[in-house]
Amino acid sequence: MYEKLKQAVFEANRALPKNNLVTLTWGNVSGVDRENDVMVIKPSGVSYDEMKPEDMVTVRLSDGEVIDSRLKPSSDTPTHLVLYRNFPEIGGVCHTHSRFATIFAQMRLEIPPYGTTHADYFYGSIPCTKTMKEAEIKDDYEANTGEVIVRKFAKLDYRNIPAVLVESHGPFTWGKSPAKCVENAIVLEEVAFMAWHTMVGTGNQKAIYINMLGNPLSNNNPLLDKHFLRKHGKDAYYGQ
Amino acid sequence: MYEKLKQAVFEANRALPKNNLVTLTWGNVSGVDRENDVMVIKPSGVSYDEMKPEDMVTVRLSDGEVIDSRLKPSSDTPTHLVLYRNFPEIGGVCHTHSRFATIFAQMRLEIPPYGTTHADYFYGSIPCTKTMKEAEIKDDYEANTGEVIVRKFAKLDYRNIPAVLVESHGPFTWGKSPAKCVENAIVLEEVAFMAWHTMVGTGNQKAIYINMLGNPLSNNNPLLDKHFLRKHGKDAYYGQ
Amino acid sequence: MYEKLKQAVFEANRALPKNNLVTLTWGNVSGVDRENDVMVIKPSGVSYDEMKPEDMVTVRLSDGEVIDSRLKPSSDTPTHLVLYRNFPEIGGVCHTHSRFATIFAQMRLEIPPYGTTHADYFYGSIPCTKTMKEAEIKDDYEANTGEVIVRKFAKLDYRNIPAVLVESHGPFTWGKSPAKCVENAIVLEEVAFMAWHTMVGTGNQKAIYINMLGNPLSNNNPLLDKHFLRKHGKDAYYGQ
Amino acid sequence: MYEKLKQAVFEANRALPKNNLVTLTWGNVSGVDRENDVMVIKPSGVSYDEMKPEDMVTVRLSDGEVIDSRLKPSSDTPTHLVLYRNFPEIGGVCHTHSRFATIFAQMRLEIPPYGTTHADYFYGSIPCTKTMKEAEIKDDYEANTGEVIVRKFAKLDYRNIPAVLVESHGPFTWGKSPAKCVENAIVLEEVAFMAWHTMVGTGNQKAIYINMLGNPLSNNNPLLDKHFLRKHGKDAYYGQ
Repeated sequence: MYEKLKQAVFEANRALPKNNLVTLTWGNVSGVDRENDVMVIKPSGVSYDEMKPEDMVTVRLSDGEVIDSRLKPSSDTPTHLVLYRNFPEIGGVCHTHSRFATIFAQMRLEIPPYGTTHADYFYGSIPCTKTMKEAEIKDDYEANTGEVIVRKFAKLDYRNIPAVLVESHGPFTWGKSPAKCVENAIVLEEVAFMAWHTMVGTGNQKAIYINMLGNPLSNNNPLLDKHFLRKHGKDAYYGQ
Repeated sequence: MYEKLKQAVFEANRALPKNNLVTLTWGNVSGVDRENDVMVIKPSGVSYDEMKPEDMVTVRLSDGEVIDSRLKPSSDTPTHLVLYRNFPEIGGVCHTHSRFATIFAQMRLEIPPYGTTHADYFYGSIPCTKTMKEAEIKDDYEANTGEVIVRKFAKLDYRNIPAVLVESHGPFTWGKSPAKCVENAIVLEEVAFMAWHTMVGTGNQKAIYINMLGNPLSNNNPLLDKHFLRKHGKDAYYGQ
Repeated sequence: MYEKLKQAVFEANRALPKNNLVTLTWGNVSGVDRENDVMVIKPSGVSYDEMKPEDMVTVRLSDGEVIDSRLKPSSDTPTHLVLYRNFPEIGGVCHTHSRFATIFAQMRLEIPPYGTTHADYFYGSIPCTKTMKEAEIKDDYEANTGEVIVRKFAKLDYRNIPAVLVESHGPFTWGKSPAKCVENAIVLEEVAFMAWHTMVGTGNQKAIYINMLGNPLSNNNPLLDKHFLRKHGKDAYYGQ
Repeated sequence: MYEKLKQAVFEANRALPKNNLVTLTWGNVSGVDRENDVMVIKPSGVSYDEMKPEDMVTVRLSDGEVIDSRLKPSSDTPTHLVLYRNFPEIGGVCHTHSRFATIFAQMRLEIPPYGTTHADYFYGSIPCTKTMKEAEIKDDYEANTGEVIVRKFAKLDYRNIPAVLVESHGPFTWGKSPAKCVENAIVLEEVAFMAWHTMVGTGNQKAIYINMLGNPLSNNNPLLDKHFLRKHGKDAYYGQ
């Protein structure tokens, strides 16, 4: 079932390495069939080269239950679900660690519009979420990542700005379809590359330094703990 | 008709992705047959992989009417026409959003000559146009983009400096033929890459910061509005 | 003998150019069979394209003697041996001059954690070793390179931070297997790339300048002498 | 005649685009047979894809006369000849506009040794030549480019530092053979890339700014005139 949606999600995931948006398996795309209450997403920990369309995992949109699959859905599934539930017009969600979008997330800066390339796709700055609280990180981290995005869009129109930077983490993009959210991820990376070089080429990073943005995270930071410990050690659950 | 010119324009457009000058479909090349009052240009919204030589669109040079084509000409057609009408010796025009040329356009800086690579192709700084007025952006935006370029060359020789940066937008190049304007676009990008790193590597961006160049555009900037709204929403006309 | 380990070491070495981690032959991977007191490593001065699995060189872990091979082991063999002897749980070691990891080594800076990409693999800053003493450089340079790494981990857990920068030189990574230490080298380079751009994009290099880090090495520096003279002139022994 | 040398020079020239050292046709390699008073060099204005081993041009080392060829030798031939005559142990010379070596030439800075990658190939800073005088540029420009390199090595050993940056222009490298001078060009570019990022990453460009290095060249600069006018207009002679 859902062969057509699985095919679209499969192709959208394969477009990630083809467009140099991912290293190793650091990215995932999903699609949605709202009528049938279904989200389809990349399986967890499977490489882009080896996966097949039928490996895409089917999850119930309303409660997140896996419907029918031998494989585990991407560990980022709860984030995708929150976005679909709160942004009713979107049909695809994409997460990557693409280089310059992630660099802006690590600088904890929104990407301001420096030119028409930005404006062709994004109507205003691409926002960066607030720092997550320790409690939000410890429990339901992936769902709370979705919530912090949704809160950021309380006064923004998600249809006109189909991208966000999760602070100290990386970008999420969305669109009408799985293919469209990947297109937005491609453009986001291009826009981030050009914004970084515009900023640095004109010495605008001076002002940022004064505000002490972009400092490294301190040791024992709960976000760093979460990310290392969900992949390593006895309580690991990510990408297994 | 015009098979030879269509073939040359087709090949020049295909050279754009091959030389890493475009992302998605962000670029177009045209050629001209002045004797027959004809300009040939890439069709709008067609990918470089799928288009064929016969898809190139024929437009009358004097009045911009499509002569014979099922496909729409590139949305940037009016800019190309203005350049051919004002620069009588050119036979090809190329527009891209290539990375470092666009970064200089976003910094609102001309590209100064830092070395012989620049001087091998461009006799002096590569200029950046003035800020377009709101009225120029609202009506006949694409034709006015051509006009602002032509005004910039009032005291410059377009034959010795076959490139320009449109402020906050990106580069246009030209040459004796479609192939030659793409060659100039390749060299422009290379020269822009090296100029940016020469400038930043020697700390010269300091002086720029003092002059407050390179700041992001403010919200409600008419150029950002134009670019978002010509591609999105009910009045969209670009790339359709 | 050791065909399986040789195959794994061969494949791990071939992964270096495939993942853009090496120029020319500047990198090597080894693997270990602790039960049989054996380390297998890339042969010296052989290109990644030409080498075959059976060319991998077998060395005794306890005393460094070549067991059975027509080819010489990598000149960095003594460094690998010291790491295996001191880090009992590792099964693979990788050395490259990958660009941004080497740039941090040349800046003489640890790589601080700026985000979750770092934390997914490394639990804390990736350390940079201390300056080697002239005596350590002159005699047993390669083994002493291992010792200076081991000393740096006196208070760090090598299992949670599987990478190090050797000051003014480049990175070493390790892992459970030859494949895993190369994966860590890929991630290290990605993390280093993003950390450099986070730092520079926010003007944080200012503080570094004040401390006079990152200055070039003076002439007659013993490390520079060692590296030039072990490859050139009558006493050359590296990559022969 | 000289088939073996022509083959070596041919292969060395083909290695330039393969190693991303050239854009368009901006690079050339030569080789020498001192016993027979012969230098073999790339033909002028022929693309790397189209040329064949027999197209390589044979020139007399002692007087620069073309010995036997339908094609013109590279316009940089006089520079190559001066280097062979003054550096008696070299067997190959390579000129490119590779990106970061050229950026250092445009910054008018030597490349200081920041680490062991540099020291593995170059024993000390890679020097940058002095500004050429207007008379040196106007007449015998290409031969004088060689002379300014030779003068720079008056107190340096060309065997230990097989590379130079010609100010505001780009790099020349040399070596025992055509293949070896290309290897040195590959390493030079890698070392220049890492030195630039080491310098900028630690804020060391501040000191340079104070000395006003790296400023663009003024209009009517004789070097810019020479390079534009030798390729364009009625007196053009380069790459014809």
